[in-house]
Amino acid sequence: MAEGATRAGGAQTRFGRALVTGGEGFLGRHLCATLAAAGTQVVCVDNLSTSAPRFADLPRGVQFVEHDITAPLPQPWADTDFDVIFHLASPASPPDYLRLPLATLRAGAQGTTTVLDLADRCRSRVVLASTSEVYGDPLEHPQRESYWGNVNPIGPRSVYDEAKRYAEALAFAYHRDHGTDIGVARIFNTYGPGMRPDDGRAVPTFCRQALGGLPLTVAGDGTQTRSLCYVDDTVAGLIAMAGSRVSGPVNIGNPVELPVREIAEIIRDLAGADVPIEHHPAVTDDPQRRCPDISEARDHLGWAPTVSHLDGLSATVDWFREVLRAADVPTAQAT
Amino acid sequence: MAEGATRAGGAQTRFGRALVTGGEGFLGRHLCATLAAAGTQVVCVDNLSTSAPRFADLPRGVQFVEHDITAPLPQPWADTDFDVIFHLASPASPPDYLRLPLATLRAGAQGTTTVLDLADRCRSRVVLASTSEVYGDPLEHPQRESYWGNVNPIGPRSVYDEAKRYAEALAFAYHRDHGTDIGVARIFNTYGPGMRPDDGRAVPTFCRQALGGLPLTVAGDGTQTRSLCYVDDTVAGLIAMAGSRVSGPVNIGNPVELPVREIAEIIRDLAGADVPIEHHPAVTDDPQRRCPDISEARDHLGWAPTVSHLDGLSATVDWFREVLRAADVPTAQAT
Repeated sequence: MAEGATRAGGAQTRFGRALVTGGEGFLGRHLCATLAAAGTQVVCVDNLSTSAPRFADLPRGVQFVEHDITAPLPQPWADTDFDVIFHLASPASPPDYLRLPLATLRAGAQGTTTVLDLADRCRSRVVLASTSEVYGDPLEHPQRESYWGNVNPIGPRSVYDEAKRYAEALAFAYHRDHGTDIGVARIFNTYGPGMRPDDGRAVPTFCRQALGGLPLTVAGDGTQTRSLCYVDDTVAGLIAMAGSRVSGPVNIGNPVELPVREIAEIIRDLAGADVPIEHHPAVTDDPQRRCPDISEARDHLGWAPTVSHLDGLSATVDWFREVLRAADVPTAQAT
Repeated sequence: MAEGATRAGGAQTRFGRALVTGGEGFLGRHLCATLAAAGTQVVCVDNLSTSAPRFADLPRGVQFVEHDITAPLPQPWADTDFDVIFHLASPASPPDYLRLPLATLRAGAQGTTTVLDLADRCRSRVVLASTSEVYGDPLEHPQRESYWGNVNPIGPRSVYDEAKRYAEALAFAYHRDHGTDIGVARIFNTYGPGMRPDDGRAVPTFCRQALGGLPLTVAGDGTQTRSLCYVDDTVAGLIAMAGSRVSGPVNIGNPVELPVREIAEIIRDLAGADVPIEHHPAVTDDPQRRCPDISEARDHLGWAPTVSHLDGLSATVDWFREVLRAADVPTAQAT
């Protein structure tokens, strides 16, 4: 463990040096900023395949390396010792991974291999960002970590789901075979300020539509549920995972289930928009329900989400309002 | 299509030049020999991780290249045009893949990537040897190709199961994204002459034990079933797949279900051995039932197994008797 590492409430929250792959993504940016704010030196690696660089507003303590993690890190990073590696690199929203199917599969296999080999070399802990998508369209509710999932291995979404299942299998194989120190976090839907307005997921789409005075488009009949976790909570969960010795997998998500239709209505209200909600055809293999059982995270990481949906969605709508205003996109006014 | 390709009964059974990865394995050897006997020039690639080379008895028309397919082929093979590629390379028996967990995962991801990239370059058809293991411990019987499976993503066996699910997802991603001509065959248990006596699967283990006058060891209570397909039938199924335009996945297996205990009894009788059958603890995540629905293969490949269990097991026991006798292992005499 690096000098200067501190523990709060039994869990380490500050590390000497951290590597964050996919550090320019939505979740990666929040994670890098939170780590850096706590005094960790952060190396942020990203190939920018689904994000724009933001050199201007890089937080203090974060160094950016443009690199595709399916290949070994360039020097001097290949020989740098990291205390912890967060492996987040992958297209993560459905429109992104459907547009980049082979890159998504490579990120799960070759990308995870690079990271685990690096961790082996510098004996660092790896937090693997897995996903609730490993449960597919689950037949058990809520999902516990012991549930094996219901995933179509050859459907369009399999490029993401099977890549992440493979990454989990690989991480556990390294753990059993090499003693690699892994922590597998199955991240459920996360939202908050900083999402790309066009990333295709429900919350940014509804924010963009509602603030732009457009009808909100719900896939299917909108009774399918999502458990939405505010990004600050998810980041706290990942850092708790890093500070523990838990291999997992551990669900990181908010167990409050909301129908997609209701999420649309809340965002419409917060945006003060007088627009209809329209129903579009359902997406192939779109899961009908998804809700984490977070007993493992509560019991072994001392973690649970703390931000309410109204607070989180309100902060998100406010952030999108500012972004769209700055971009000169006409927005609906609060009534 | 190469000059000299022929079709019999509507299905192509001879190809100009074929590449067989894993061609030194049990199934690969039979496939190479059958292809060569029909006049196909065969390049057999294998890293020999689970098989011994047999330069002395290489069939005429088969050229052997020692190479690990997780890396691109060496010259001149990298620039050779193949009419069809059979991708069989992977440790395939549980003791092998549990001993080689990382190599098994790499064969599924990087190995399949090499093969699909090669197929893209020379516009050849790829037959991917997938497995009934993608169904895991199935909750549906018999298994149809539309069943999504019940696989533990992090258990010891996941190094094989998830690698093959990943390989399927990758093949279909190439098919959708690049138009790669793929045929995914989900191969169920195959047996016959040429299995390694120590490969750990039920049939060779029972043959070795019965012929050596040892008790037959059955995992669990022996009521778990296996559908055993004789190797000549499986090879015919793979060649039918290669000669078709079917993407699959298509189950290749024998739909007759036999309890493992009954398989042991048949082999004991065929060996004429007067030995007991003992029950050992069940193996982690060992599937309880496995039986293919082969309607797809019947309807779209015109294929079904033709060899009865008694004929197939009899030929297998005879072959093992010769091998063990040649190796000077004491064998029980037929009564």
